[in-house]
Amino acid sequence: MTIHDISVPLQNGVHFWEGDPEPNISRIQDHERGDAWTTSHLSFAAHIGTHVDAPLHRVRGGKTIDSLDLRTLLGRAYVADLIDVNSEITANDLDARHIPSNVKRLLFKTRNGELWTRQGFQKDFVALSADGAQWVVERGIKLVGMDYLSADIFFADTAPAHDILLNANVVIVEGMMLQAVTAGWYTLICLPIKVAGADGAPARAILYTGSIEEER
Amino acid sequence: MTIHDISVPLQNGVHFWEGDPEPNISRIQDHERGDAWTTSHLSFAAHIGTHVDAPLHRVRGGKTIDSLDLRTLLGRAYVADLIDVNSEITANDLDARHIPSNVKRLLFKTRNGELWTRQGFQKDFVALSADGAQWVVERGIKLVGMDYLSADIFFADTAPAHDILLNANVVIVEGMMLQAVTAGWYTLICLPIKVAGADGAPARAILYTGSIEEER
Repeated sequence: MTIHDISVPLQNGVHFWEGDPEPNISRIQDHERGDAWTTSHLSFAAHIGTHVDAPLHRVRGGKTIDSLDLRTLLGRAYVADLIDVNSEITANDLDARHIPSNVKRLLFKTRNGELWTRQGFQKDFVALSADGAQWVVERGIKLVGMDYLSADIFFADTAPAHDILLNANVVIVEGMMLQAVTAGWYTLICLPIKVAGADGAPARAILYTGSIEEER
Repeated sequence: MTIHDISVPLQNGVHFWEGDPEPNISRIQDHERGDAWTTSHLSFAAHIGTHVDAPLHRVRGGKTIDSLDLRTLLGRAYVADLIDVNSEITANDLDARHIPSNVKRLLFKTRNGELWTRQGFQKDFVALSADGAQWVVERGIKLVGMDYLSADIFFADTAPAHDILLNANVVIVEGMMLQAVTAGWYTLICLPIKVAGADGAPARAILYTGSIEEER
């Protein structure tokens, strides 16, 4: 079995969405200060690091993060190589990749992987065009994985990819680190923490080959 | 496939460890206030709800939550029925259960399940005795699951179960909701969010039967 941890390490200084409160991770107790325990405190927007967007993030009255079907978040997933796309991933780009027709979970590996090595939030990331999002919906795909912090490019006034995907109840995972993963099939586990009634939540996401079910 | 979500819903009012800061989940943006998005903010101790303790929580210089071997957190797990134990789960209690000898991940289903239905933190929960923790280590078990907020009973001055388990690098999962789960074998997925260098982190935990790996 090979496990790829595709989750962003959460720490002070982690890239976060411009306009969101700054993440703050601190120590409540610390062995290094003579305490008997070390205990951390976490404070950040729900859309920090690797995280899942529920429809409620954009759709009034939409499904919440704790009501998503777990079956969507667990199962076979395909990583598509879109490294040569510069700004928006279009339907044409997707057609050109010969993505298998039975894909239900599709992760986009783009040049965004490099952005995580830079200091602070980066605005020039690759995301989906409106017709790219429409392509996803028409294919019957249930989950998409983006490798930076939004499904829409930064400079859009609107959010057509979010609107199209979330209105169709396609789960959006943002902030996946896919640099070390090659294109192809894996098993995906992407589990957001269970924040009741929320619009999204941070998740731990992994891709693996082989089986955990045979592991005793 | 059947999936049991054994994670505590995180919300204001959720039980939290006495002495830890009160959890606060709030809205940064909200459709109901006329915003274009709904976005939540999260603030709580790392040991909130269903969460994983890394050795660093109790052991100075111990392993951190982001350095735990993911293979420990994924795989076959056994739920043992200890409903009739009133305070501490002892080695004798464990011997009496005829727990399979090849168990690597052992979850304790106790009367704690009922405590979650009460208002606020409950002190009279069941946890492990020192000799119960020693029994776990001697069996070569890699992960234990507790169904309330500590591996040690509340009224102990010390924390022998934490000390024994974390010094032996046994992963402790606390706050599993096991009421709806019957004793026996499952596949466990328990993924904490990846907080760099931390002593613990909230996790989404599920038990399932059947296969996610055949699901396309």
